[in-house]
Amino acid sequence: MTFERMWADLAPVGRAASGGYLRHPWTSPTAELEAWFEEAATARGLAVERDAFGNLLATTAPGPDRVLVGSHFDSVPDGGAYDGPLGVVSAFAALDVLEDRGFEPTRPIGIAAFQAEEGSRFGVACLGSRLATGSMPWESARELTGRDGVRLGDVVEGGDSDLLHGVSCFVELHVEQGRGLVDLDAPVGVASGIWPHGRWRFDFAGVADHAGATRMEDRHDPMLTYAVTALAANKQARLAGQRATFGRVEAVPNGTNAIPSHVTGWLDARAETEPALEHLVGLVSAQARERARLDGTSLTVTAESVSGSVSFDAPLAARIGRGRPVLPTQAGHDAGVLQAAGIPTAMLFVRNPTGVSHSPAEHAETADCLAGVEALADALQELA
Amino acid sequence: MTFERMWADLAPVGRAASGGYLRHPWTSPTAELEAWFEEAATARGLAVERDAFGNLLATTAPGPDRVLVGSHFDSVPDGGAYDGPLGVVSAFAALDVLEDRGFEPTRPIGIAAFQAEEGSRFGVACLGSRLATGSMPWESARELTGRDGVRLGDVVEGGDSDLLHGVSCFVELHVEQGRGLVDLDAPVGVASGIWPHGRWRFDFAGVADHAGATRMEDRHDPMLTYAVTALAANKQARLAGQRATFGRVEAVPNGTNAIPSHVTGWLDARAETEPALEHLVGLVSAQARERARLDGTSLTVTAESVSGSVSFDAPLAARIGRGRPVLPTQAGHDAGVLQAAGIPTAMLFVRNPTGVSHSPAEHAETADCLAGVEALADALQELA
Repeated sequence: MTFERMWADLAPVGRAASGGYLRHPWTSPTAELEAWFEEAATARGLAVERDAFGNLLATTAPGPDRVLVGSHFDSVPDGGAYDGPLGVVSAFAALDVLEDRGFEPTRPIGIAAFQAEEGSRFGVACLGSRLATGSMPWESARELTGRDGVRLGDVVEGGDSDLLHGVSCFVELHVEQGRGLVDLDAPVGVASGIWPHGRWRFDFAGVADHAGATRMEDRHDPMLTYAVTALAANKQARLAGQRATFGRVEAVPNGTNAIPSHVTGWLDARAETEPALEHLVGLVSAQARERARLDGTSLTVTAESVSGSVSFDAPLAARIGRGRPVLPTQAGHDAGVLQAAGIPTAMLFVRNPTGVSHSPAEHAETADCLAGVEALADALQELA
Repeated sequence: MTFERMWADLAPVGRAASGGYLRHPWTSPTAELEAWFEEAATARGLAVERDAFGNLLATTAPGPDRVLVGSHFDSVPDGGAYDGPLGVVSAFAALDVLEDRGFEPTRPIGIAAFQAEEGSRFGVACLGSRLATGSMPWESARELTGRDGVRLGDVVEGGDSDLLHGVSCFVELHVEQGRGLVDLDAPVGVASGIWPHGRWRFDFAGVADHAGATRMEDRHDPMLTYAVTALAANKQARLAGQRATFGRVEAVPNGTNAIPSHVTGWLDARAETEPALEHLVGLVSAQARERARLDGTSLTVTAESVSGSVSFDAPLAARIGRGRPVLPTQAGHDAGVLQAAGIPTAMLFVRNPTGVSHSPAEHAETADCLAGVEALADALQELA
């Protein structure tokens, strides 16, 4: 019951006419979600702290050896309701379940809401957890500039974070972003690991000119080089059984009657292994350069964020899994950053009937969300 | 001398760090250019009027049988200095030349600055002259919405225009946007006509989803359909000796880790004849639809503005041409709209050493600009 009430409270925050969400980090919708977090924590007698990067933590008791749960609030542009908030809300609901059960934890429990997991504002995924773990230094992060021209250093103070001091393990519950659990016919599963993945910026430079008066053979049109590259990425990933996407593109000057001077596309690529990922990005870059040579354009490829392969903590997964199906994910998560930073980490996935995510159509049935809350409560009872 | 002084006065207005210009219609840079126009006209004793669409007219005397010269002030995003303003400034300079020559016109002379020739804000090229001639009705134009979400009806009053009443002929001087005059080794030429041309919006719809977790074979990615279409447009235009460009693209949600739900690309196409243009756009649309079928995406093609073939008034061209070379243009101009509306019209082109236009690199040598002013003064002396 408490899960459904909390979920209904959050439903309108940052919702667009499309039904999708725009919950950019360090904007008013996420501030509203954070105010809700503080209220939910305070109502349960939890202490709330915010680190220098805006990551939130609510704790049942001070001290080390803490069991951490939680996820993030921010969304991609026009994203779904579940990706992120489901893990935060389920964490509070799981505490309520433990209280109903009369369970007295012997170790402190923390609920985290990490900032800027999607990377849709500053281009780096899992920014809050990377900063909290120190895997991204503040000195380089502060200069990150969003597409609105705002620097990260302008919206958040920065410094050091002790949010993760004393954390002995982390369990992140998350909506599944594929159809693995549909195929396995299970409402909840446990993650084995995260595919290595990253985002690469492809900057194509050509020569701006008049779209009407310039002969086709006199052009150096970077839109053509971009188009071939987007198709090459799709084809190479398909052939290799991996994933590659150009979902974001920007042309300059982006005028109908002007051949562009610049086109920038962002490659999102993921593969089963790190060598396979490197090979995939290398193939796409090589095909892009080959076409750039023909078009008389030029290409610069910049890795914006790359995450290595993550295997979650197998003993932890076994303790909380209780025979539930185990499956990998191609999506990055704060859990992967914490695991990579040496904190034993596990993930619980909640079934997504269509597999659709990063879209207004993202969905999970309430019964499956409640099964997720129970699984998270079981995990806390096992660990705390 | 007066040309160079006026040209220097306008050089800083709307100039970006790139050296290119952002002179969107109904914004502060164009307002500044219009204030300059009023000042230049008033200093010469001309009466200035502004019609309901913001087109400007300066006249030497009232009455009908008016000889009209002029061009436009607005630019494409990051455009050049010459496209448009050269024709307006040369018109004032030509009046000064006539005064130096002691020529007394027997007919009124008008200098026009048409609004929104580039179509880069509201998607329709030659908007001001289309409205002034009535070839686009205000009732449909007022609902045009720019990429900033602003409606045309919100920035301009609209209504009727009598700016072109009593105009007996129009001569537009313009920088050439190709290298025809370079090949012909002439500083100034006369236009024979304008290729038929237009802009078509291609809206590709797919299914938004997670870029990592969605298997390649489960996708309906409209970026792929767009990419194939942009390449098809280039190839078909190349094979047919015509012109086709996708210079503007917008993806939704335009996030790196999301497969787009929608991609919109704008096709600019031009051909020697109207049937050839129709055939070209038909071929590109057919290839786009064929690929959409394979991608499981959908496509809507909307003609945003289409201009038929224009042949300028041959007797007028002969009177002002004085043996100068005659050449066609692939670029649309207000002159084409006035000619199509039944006003005998001619164009003078000034040599462009690189042929580059719609780019910061657009250029004309001062000596050639002065030759253009002399040619325009000669035309006025012949006609007025």
